[in-house]
Amino acid sequence: MSLVQLDDYGPWTVTPEPRSETDLQALQARLFADLADFVGSRDGYAFFGRFDNMIAVTNGIDPATHERFQERVRNRYPVTASVGIGRAPTPAAALGAASEALQSAGGAQDPARESAIEVAGPAPTSEHVTIAHFDVVDATGTYTDSHNPVDTSQTIQRATTELASYLRSEHDAVTQFVGGDNVVAACPALGREQFDETLAHVAEVAGVTLQVGVGSGPTAREAGQAAKEALEQCRETGRRFARGD
Amino acid sequence: MSLVQLDDYGPWTVTPEPRSETDLQALQARLFADLADFVGSRDGYAFFGRFDNMIAVTNGIDPATHERFQERVRNRYPVTASVGIGRAPTPAAALGAASEALQSAGGAQDPARESAIEVAGPAPTSEHVTIAHFDVVDATGTYTDSHNPVDTSQTIQRATTELASYLRSEHDAVTQFVGGDNVVAACPALGREQFDETLAHVAEVAGVTLQVGVGSGPTAREAGQAAKEALEQCRETGRRFARGD
Amino acid sequence: MSLVQLDDYGPWTVTPEPRSETDLQALQARLFADLADFVGSRDGYAFFGRFDNMIAVTNGIDPATHERFQERVRNRYPVTASVGIGRAPTPAAALGAASEALQSAGGAQDPARESAIEVAGPAPTSEHVTIAHFDVVDATGTYTDSHNPVDTSQTIQRATTELASYLRSEHDAVTQFVGGDNVVAACPALGREQFDETLAHVAEVAGVTLQVGVGSGPTAREAGQAAKEALEQCRETGRRFARGD
Amino acid sequence: MSLVQLDDYGPWTVTPEPRSETDLQALQARLFADLADFVGSRDGYAFFGRFDNMIAVTNGIDPATHERFQERVRNRYPVTASVGIGRAPTPAAALGAASEALQSAGGAQDPARESAIEVAGPAPTSEHVTIAHFDVVDATGTYTDSHNPVDTSQTIQRATTELASYLRSEHDAVTQFVGGDNVVAACPALGREQFDETLAHVAEVAGVTLQVGVGSGPTAREAGQAAKEALEQCRETGRRFARGD
Repeated sequence: MSLVQLDDYGPWTVTPEPRSETDLQALQARLFADLADFVGSRDGYAFFGRFDNMIAVTNGIDPATHERFQERVRNRYPVTASVGIGRAPTPAAALGAASEALQSAGGAQDPARESAIEVAGPAPTSEHVTIAHFDVVDATGTYTDSHNPVDTSQTIQRATTELASYLRSEHDAVTQFVGGDNVVAACPALGREQFDETLAHVAEVAGVTLQVGVGSGPTAREAGQAAKEALEQCRETGRRFARGD
Repeated sequence: MSLVQLDDYGPWTVTPEPRSETDLQALQARLFADLADFVGSRDGYAFFGRFDNMIAVTNGIDPATHERFQERVRNRYPVTASVGIGRAPTPAAALGAASEALQSAGGAQDPARESAIEVAGPAPTSEHVTIAHFDVVDATGTYTDSHNPVDTSQTIQRATTELASYLRSEHDAVTQFVGGDNVVAACPALGREQFDETLAHVAEVAGVTLQVGVGSGPTAREAGQAAKEALEQCRETGRRFARGD
Repeated sequence: MSLVQLDDYGPWTVTPEPRSETDLQALQARLFADLADFVGSRDGYAFFGRFDNMIAVTNGIDPATHERFQERVRNRYPVTASVGIGRAPTPAAALGAASEALQSAGGAQDPARESAIEVAGPAPTSEHVTIAHFDVVDATGTYTDSHNPVDTSQTIQRATTELASYLRSEHDAVTQFVGGDNVVAACPALGREQFDETLAHVAEVAGVTLQVGVGSGPTAREAGQAAKEALEQCRETGRRFARGD
Repeated sequence: MSLVQLDDYGPWTVTPEPRSETDLQALQARLFADLADFVGSRDGYAFFGRFDNMIAVTNGIDPATHERFQERVRNRYPVTASVGIGRAPTPAAALGAASEALQSAGGAQDPARESAIEVAGPAPTSEHVTIAHFDVVDATGTYTDSHNPVDTSQTIQRATTELASYLRSEHDAVTQFVGGDNVVAACPALGREQFDETLAHVAEVAGVTLQVGVGSGPTAREAGQAAKEALEQCRETGRRFARGD
């Protein structure tokens, strides 16, 4: 997992005075889009995270390639990005390692840190990624076309929060809302029963019925495509769980 | 308030087979960035919402200008966008009216709907916007530089969810996470006491200490800039509430 | 006419060492796309010029709006842009005035100049724009599908150079290649005979047969759309000249 | 060399009626920027060409990677792109082969062609690229800060046209204006004398004094960076020719 953290970004946004909020929104969105492109065309996955702290699943993408992304940011944006790369048995542990590595080069608001890159954890042996792709059963009919968008957003946001929290505490996964009613998690290898429990938990605490497609493979792209195809099976068959190959 | 809804987007993302997830992420982020630019340079505010349903504060921006944005989407992207414009005394009511107006032109997955635009509510008399800009007190020191990014994201996500839910039910506001540890709400005119209660509520249920800058004006940009400057005062003085002029 | 000039750009591209050429290409192209969007949605036209010196037809767009564009560049890119706005009876004279005005704030490589804006010429009385849109007769059949792309590009480039040079010396117009086999000129009001002579000149010195649609109106967008529709008539009827209304 | 040609683009730009010119300009510029990023981060070079026919130096980038770029275009834009990949001893011959290969899948305005990809020429044995990077001696002082931008553009455009034409007929090179006063050529391996003759030719027929840095290497990026560093030496020493290592 890689953590891409903008350098000294908070202070920059208010120097010399608060910058236009829509300009900041647009900057963050484009920077994330560039990361998604860069990582995606190398078979990884990218999550916007908090925008100033973006997250990527980067199995098989070496540090030199990350540096190329940093060069691009430096040449295109008024801000720079530092990168921590962490390797560990679970996604959350890998991200924790990435964050600690990055700290060793300076904190997020350390003015001296610029385009740093740090790597933590053992060299990978056999790489294997599991992606779970969730969405809300009949979101358009149940919510989008019949509720105030404020309430639909909050319902999905609450379901996401509960899902992310459960998957983090139970399985050390990294979970991200990815638009619409879709949520993607980078997980360890889990069995069907564990996903059933996850869906039951979200239904109970957030009142939202989810379905999930699960895929695995050597890269996030392969695992994610398998998960998306499995989710299509759920939509077609009415089942709540399917596994891609 | 305006609701910008991608037409028949869900089906498109899986036709003829599921499209690359990172390509979809990048598409959504860029489309939002374009909306932020378009609305922002006309003194409005834009929120990414759920990306396929984006939200904008568009006081003073007429329907013909919205159509220009739709034209641009049609000329630049493989998808189209429909727009509902709602006018009402509170932000959430305006967004509800916008959504209902849009429904009259067809649901979100109605294949026949393309670049529709609908307006609901009375012509505006005196326009006045209030923006509240929240952030987490010492987020970098307390969270970013010392916790696993997974946990920091979840903490801020939970605080956002509780804040949005409270402001919606108590004050009919529309609330959006805007990156980092920042949350912005389009509110009715509220007093200091009501913001104090809001911060106390979030501290109690989510365990996160927020501060807030509040501004108002004829456009979202003016109100938002005043709110951002007020928030800077909070950062400098240690107070939890400030109001811009 | 407006001249948008990147500040101290040449030196920046080689500091501390030459930056990646493709990064520079991408930066310039995106900055121009942003200008095209910004100006275009306000009924103007934008030309990439030399990329570090971009040109826009900005009748009816006031200096404060130009400043908003400069703010956006400052917030999004690692470079800044200065702007000269010139008003004069012909497009080339207006651009000359814009350039001289900009010089008064400092040269293109003056490190002290940053986001300057200068206006020259009398306040506009009646605004009226003429746009001529040229293309090559049957470019795809005659060139694209049958010649080496190197040679096709050179043929069109040579025709553009001769066209631009002739329209500048004879009619004080500003002419720009806009992609494919299309060339657009901002002109004074000219008669049919003058366009016939122009086409004959290009045919003679560059050996390329052009056709042209001409439109006029209060803004570049209206004039340009009329010109484009007129050019469609040429394609349909086989005539070499048409005027839109 | 790769030729990236938009499918059926001319007809699309006028269907159902002529699309906004600034929208087309922005679309073309962003599509090129995406190509520059994609190719650039894989050590290639990209040229905007005629925008609907873009050119890339893609030594070492395999067809499957080109397909990934086509997938991205399909997922992001309202148009698609076909690609011809040509291999030959000289850049212009390679581009000619790429164009002919592409023709075999259909012409540029064949409505049935969509995201085609064709490869021509023998598998590469030893790859070696030479890049020559030209600019105008003291362009800012001599032209930008003292002439009407219309005339400066025309001067540089004419110099580019003559340079491209000479390098094509004498050495089978592919030459592109890349912004400012910069022109880049993908060449065969040429000696100093041949570059001296080239500069003398342009000085004679276009009246413009150029200087050139030349580099070579296994990829366009390495060759291009060496050329850019050599050009810096020209700027510092006043020489008109330098070769990077």
